[in-house]
Amino acid sequence: MTGHVVALCGGVGGAKLAHGLAMALQSEDLTIVVNTGDDFQHLGLEVAPDLDSVLYALAGLSDPVRGWGRRDETWTFMKVLKSLGGESWFQLGDGDLVMHVQRSWQLSRGASLSEVTANLCRALGITVRVLPMSDDPVRTRVRTTDGWLNFQEYFVQQQCRPVVQEFIFAGAETARAQPQVLAALNQPDVRAIIICPSNPFVSIEPILSVPEIRVAIQQSRAPVVAVTPIIGGSSIKGPAGKMMAELGLEVSGAAVARRYTGIIDGFVIDQADPVPEPQQGVVFFRAATLMSTTEDRLRLAQETLRLADSLCTSQM
Amino acid sequence: MTGHVVALCGGVGGAKLAHGLAMALQSEDLTIVVNTGDDFQHLGLEVAPDLDSVLYALAGLSDPVRGWGRRDETWTFMKVLKSLGGESWFQLGDGDLVMHVQRSWQLSRGASLSEVTANLCRALGITVRVLPMSDDPVRTRVRTTDGWLNFQEYFVQQQCRPVVQEFIFAGAETARAQPQVLAALNQPDVRAIIICPSNPFVSIEPILSVPEIRVAIQQSRAPVVAVTPIIGGSSIKGPAGKMMAELGLEVSGAAVARRYTGIIDGFVIDQADPVPEPQQGVVFFRAATLMSTTEDRLRLAQETLRLADSLCTSQM
Repeated sequence: MTGHVVALCGGVGGAKLAHGLAMALQSEDLTIVVNTGDDFQHLGLEVAPDLDSVLYALAGLSDPVRGWGRRDETWTFMKVLKSLGGESWFQLGDGDLVMHVQRSWQLSRGASLSEVTANLCRALGITVRVLPMSDDPVRTRVRTTDGWLNFQEYFVQQQCRPVVQEFIFAGAETARAQPQVLAALNQPDVRAIIICPSNPFVSIEPILSVPEIRVAIQQSRAPVVAVTPIIGGSSIKGPAGKMMAELGLEVSGAAVARRYTGIIDGFVIDQADPVPEPQQGVVFFRAATLMSTTEDRLRLAQETLRLADSLCTSQM
Repeated sequence: MTGHVVALCGGVGGAKLAHGLAMALQSEDLTIVVNTGDDFQHLGLEVAPDLDSVLYALAGLSDPVRGWGRRDETWTFMKVLKSLGGESWFQLGDGDLVMHVQRSWQLSRGASLSEVTANLCRALGITVRVLPMSDDPVRTRVRTTDGWLNFQEYFVQQQCRPVVQEFIFAGAETARAQPQVLAALNQPDVRAIIICPSNPFVSIEPILSVPEIRVAIQQSRAPVVAVTPIIGGSSIKGPAGKMMAELGLEVSGAAVARRYTGIIDGFVIDQADPVPEPQQGVVFFRAATLMSTTEDRLRLAQETLRLADSLCTSQM
């Protein structure tokens, strides 16, 4: 099969499949659309955690042990910042700071977030196209039993302890889709739209909350296939499982699939999980979705593409 | 003797005597006025090299081997910046970055440079008052045989290789003195004004180029004593000696003293140097001016104060 693939993803988990897709496809055949709802300004620096996670994954720079940030990191900046009584709840590695400093500087000189991202990709030797969902600010806010929190306050400062009740994506309603995102979704030969195994609430839904993106996906004739971020009743990494439980949802791939009703055509659950009840308009597939190695990423990417292609030819 | 001491200084060399004065005096009896002509924006960060050198010296954080920056430094940021093709001619240590990030952030939120400096002093446990000469930007520019250069281009990027012809301090004519600097100089009980052994051209003259400061010093009845940055025909550190030679000046403390004509009452040459020709209005003293150890700093500070006090009582 040929044609263009558009992947939607958040940070660490989703970035692994994005990396797999980048290995499986020619650069010109893939567009990766990244959540910016987690972005925030910290110590005056523009931090874009999901974009950086994706860039690090694609450049082979992710830290394999910590699960976030870049490998071979040092922490002198944080140590000194702490010793001076600075705000030290958000970890900024010495090497990671280069991304934030470069991004802040370029944005302050009038570049768009997508231009900055393209510059960073070029510097990192990444040839596949990585795009923020929008160049306009969209900010995820979390209503919890402790009140409304900005995403990073909830996620990092409070370490996801407060019980979640609701999410909003401030600015999403008026945000324009990044133009190349829209162009990628609207081109006639889209082979598949892949929703990576990212947190549905705070990684994928912020992307889908940008009206032009949501409409373009709904109107696309390409198969839309999501990969489960839940295996065996919990999330591999991050708070997706905890959030589902707190929202009164079943913690399962099937429940994630229900969240994506009206958006997806296919959903990949883990091979270890039970076959879900049928869902109107969704074809369930099973695959080994855990990505421990680089080979796993490539294999799951190839399998997901194959499943999407099968939908394309047999189901639609 | 009691009364307030005002010290003018630039970076590394001058900072050593400033540190000596801080050890010799009660905190409330000393105001250190620092050159900001070297300040510049780099990668969007506000860098103030002389202020930081003074703060590091006062906090005991200077790197003893390198001669600039902070001790126990690491360089991951620079390594990564370089690997990404970033501007790597100006060295930013991982720990040092905290100063630049905090300063940039606070300035961007409307704080003045002196407020930021006070905050950094507090965080570093520095009790003596350290003030930028002005909260308005003054920028040293160097005319060389290669044309006009910004100071850091000349000093760091070109490593002082171009032959200097002239210095200007852009913005100085309209810059207001930092108000506490003026208040310190104008109070009735000023015991001494000490010009630290800093580069006369690019560390002290930028301070003196702020009209209110120059006038306040000229009108002060306190003795003004400078300490030589030249020993045995060359500068201990930095390009002062090279600059003097390129400007056709004798490379000596006496020639530095002539530069300060109309400003100083006393000048401390090194004990190893020959006694200079008499100069109208300037009393020459000799002392061991090399500061290799912390004890040297204290000793030279005490001796300089003693010499200033002697001027006060016997000569004026």
